[in-house]
Amino acid sequence: MNLRKESAKPSGFVRVVEMKGILYGIGIGPGDPEHITLKAVRMMKEVDIIAAPGKVVKETTAYKIAVQAVSEIADKELLPIYMPMVLDRKQIESDHRKGADAIEECLKKGKSVGFITLGDPTVYSTYSYVEKLVKDDGFETAYISGITSFCAAAASLGIPISEWQEPFHVIPAVHQLGDKLDLKGNYVLMKSGKKMAEVKEILAKSGRNVTMVENCGLENEHRYFSVEEIPDDAGYFSLIIAKENRER
Amino acid sequence: MNLRKESAKPSGFVRVVEMKGILYGIGIGPGDPEHITLKAVRMMKEVDIIAAPGKVVKETTAYKIAVQAVSEIADKELLPIYMPMVLDRKQIESDHRKGADAIEECLKKGKSVGFITLGDPTVYSTYSYVEKLVKDDGFETAYISGITSFCAAAASLGIPISEWQEPFHVIPAVHQLGDKLDLKGNYVLMKSGKKMAEVKEILAKSGRNVTMVENCGLENEHRYFSVEEIPDDAGYFSLIIAKENRER
Repeated sequence: MNLRKESAKPSGFVRVVEMKGILYGIGIGPGDPEHITLKAVRMMKEVDIIAAPGKVVKETTAYKIAVQAVSEIADKELLPIYMPMVLDRKQIESDHRKGADAIEECLKKGKSVGFITLGDPTVYSTYSYVEKLVKDDGFETAYISGITSFCAAAASLGIPISEWQEPFHVIPAVHQLGDKLDLKGNYVLMKSGKKMAEVKEILAKSGRNVTMVENCGLENEHRYFSVEEIPDDAGYFSLIIAKENRER
Repeated sequence: MNLRKESAKPSGFVRVVEMKGILYGIGIGPGDPEHITLKAVRMMKEVDIIAAPGKVVKETTAYKIAVQAVSEIADKELLPIYMPMVLDRKQIESDHRKGADAIEECLKKGKSVGFITLGDPTVYSTYSYVEKLVKDDGFETAYISGITSFCAAAASLGIPISEWQEPFHVIPAVHQLGDKLDLKGNYVLMKSGKKMAEVKEILAKSGRNVTMVENCGLENEHRYFSVEEIPDDAGYFSLIIAKENRER
């Protein structure tokens, strides 16, 4: 409970004002608990409640990673925010609203909430949808940065994503690609797992240097160094880096 | 000095093999020492030598940030890698070669080197040029991820870079932009400082939601929430996020 003591005019009288809690979106990186930042560690220790996207907090990937770095979260109040991946936009919006309501109930009691999220909370995170609703309702919110999946994947592959003045393009869905990779610079393709055969065809045609990491930072991480190596049934958490065919 | 003890066949006899050191590119994030990861902290403590891009290590921005999180580096052997920003490609390549040579001298002695670098070492880092040379010469190298400047900037602005299936495009130099921002999705413009008046014109024409952070994570950080607010003489370390004009 956050209480702020305010000295009122008559001496000796202290007015206690109840404060609303703050919502923090805490990025915990893509898998390796050592990818968590000092700030994320501190925030997880300081908040009253840990929220995570899932039915049961302790069963979420985010929690399982975070607790390895900050064991204290196991003893905190845990708030599951259930937002299943569905296609119906109305259903999604309703789930986000329910999540925001549950969080706001806690904030109203003066409790701070740390919503742990894989990767970075500003890059395709479910946190940002809920955060918008909570902020619009007049609560204070914040983003705590995390390592992105594409930086961790490039590190694992031992290659830079871009050098010199090469732009790079992060594409989160295959149908955004079009049928060729003709932008200047390099590509990062996320979540291509479902349509890998199709993506492989586009990649092969592009003549680019293609590398891929599956399940980056997790125990079953696997790396691929050419289009031919990539299996058609690669997992959902596959990240592809397709670079212009320069000297390197 | 890294020594590996190998038990040889005859019992009681131990052969000592001298090992070469490893080069690590350690991302320390864009400014706030709390953005450093647990792994980067551990690596800075474990390596024998701290290298940083500059004439005097203790005067580099990277060192000044890192030492706030890991005070132990002040007592380590420090290796300055001087690679000034120049336009002459031959000069740049010669500087990279000299940097690689200096690092290799240390690695040959069995010492490990941690090359600290702002942001993430796979995203426009001087580390990657030196790393390539050192790796090609047969030494072991690695990348240790850091928070990118654009993730930290978005967090500071309190906005997501991209949501749903919006792609985003990271553009490191103004002349790469062309004269309009017509790609689907959002833009991250880095290092636009030098030609800000020109960039502002392109941004204004685009009709996008434009935000900017100058000196993200440093004491003199400044945030701007429209094109009009941005000064023509904004600093080199300015990062612009230009989003498609959606509901948010």
